[in-house]
Amino acid sequence: MELTRLAPQTGTAFPLRAGQQLVVIDPTGEQVSDFFCVLADDHDEWLSSGRTIDYANSIAVTTGSVLYSNRSTPMATVVEDTCGQHDFLLTPCSQQTFDLLYPEFGGAYHPSCFENLATNMGPLGVDPDRISTTLNIFMNVWVERNGELHIDPPTSVAGDRFVLRADADLLVGLTACSAEKSNNGVCKPIDYRIVD
Amino acid sequence: MELTRLAPQTGTAFPLRAGQQLVVIDPTGEQVSDFFCVLADDHDEWLSSGRTIDYANSIAVTTGSVLYSNRSTPMATVVEDTCGQHDFLLTPCSQQTFDLLYPEFGGAYHPSCFENLATNMGPLGVDPDRISTTLNIFMNVWVERNGELHIDPPTSVAGDRFVLRADADLLVGLTACSAEKSNNGVCKPIDYRIVD
Repeated sequence: MELTRLAPQTGTAFPLRAGQQLVVIDPTGEQVSDFFCVLADDHDEWLSSGRTIDYANSIAVTTGSVLYSNRSTPMATVVEDTCGQHDFLLTPCSQQTFDLLYPEFGGAYHPSCFENLATNMGPLGVDPDRISTTLNIFMNVWVERNGELHIDPPTSVAGDRFVLRADADLLVGLTACSAEKSNNGVCKPIDYRIVD
Repeated sequence: MELTRLAPQTGTAFPLRAGQQLVVIDPTGEQVSDFFCVLADDHDEWLSSGRTIDYANSIAVTTGSVLYSNRSTPMATVVEDTCGQHDFLLTPCSQQTFDLLYPEFGGAYHPSCFENLATNMGPLGVDPDRISTTLNIFMNVWVERNGELHIDPPTSVAGDRFVLRADADLLVGLTACSAEKSNNGVCKPIDYRIVD
């Protein structure tokens, strides 16, 4: 499949069959991409950050990491990661995120990963209330010993790749993240490709 | 309301009206209690670790912390916390947790917080697939700079209290955690009380 470009602050959704690989590329550097998935044939089984973190005994996701569902089914495995810094703690940015954390926007409408996931996964049968914590590819979050989070500019450089192999038939949602602060001030595109 | 005791490795579910307080007490020390909730009148709105962590910019939950729903509604506020060490990263232990992380049990049936939440919240209309990451009261988890988790014995001592005020009408699930390793080797009771 050809490379597809997600314009800044947009998203998409598509099926990913077991064995296929999803290649996510940061084409310009310092850009986050939110990933969420459900089982293609049962949308009540969904990507679980809590199960994934528990079974890995780590919040770090990188090559070799298995992404688990709420029912502890392996959904996907990371098979390549040239960046090494991603986040699996935070929910996709939403209108409420901007209302609460970005007072400078004054409550005005702002594009968001949650809206882009809901708008694209919704017509494929995924209830927006099922969208939970996303795997935030290239998002640079770390935790102080006292629990405080630091959201720093992504460490990804132009061309960095994050590749997932589907371990079950999935329905995937993917975004080019809409939150300026998570992307060093400028929202940029994301490229992706599905490989059989 | 009188104090109610949850026997080791059990759970319960009950309504908690807006303004009521839930007092959770570790009666003997070093015992975790998993907490989950949904809105009483709309079970599609549920406790979200991701939204809570994002809005607090911290994984630490203690006095003053607001627990948010997936739709960013404040569900509850922590009004007292004599322990100061809790976890909001991990899912409730389930049969699969024991199968994957406790090989010494050889895949045999083991009581779990997930089963205890599902068994008690299910009859009240909560689909077990809606049970996400729980607030694990008194669970002692910390994160190394490289992302690795440490699950240490709870720091709670006999009589430690964690008190939540409901900010909306809730349906609550609560357990005395079933996982030996999270409770310094011995699963013990949990006490709770609802205060008007």
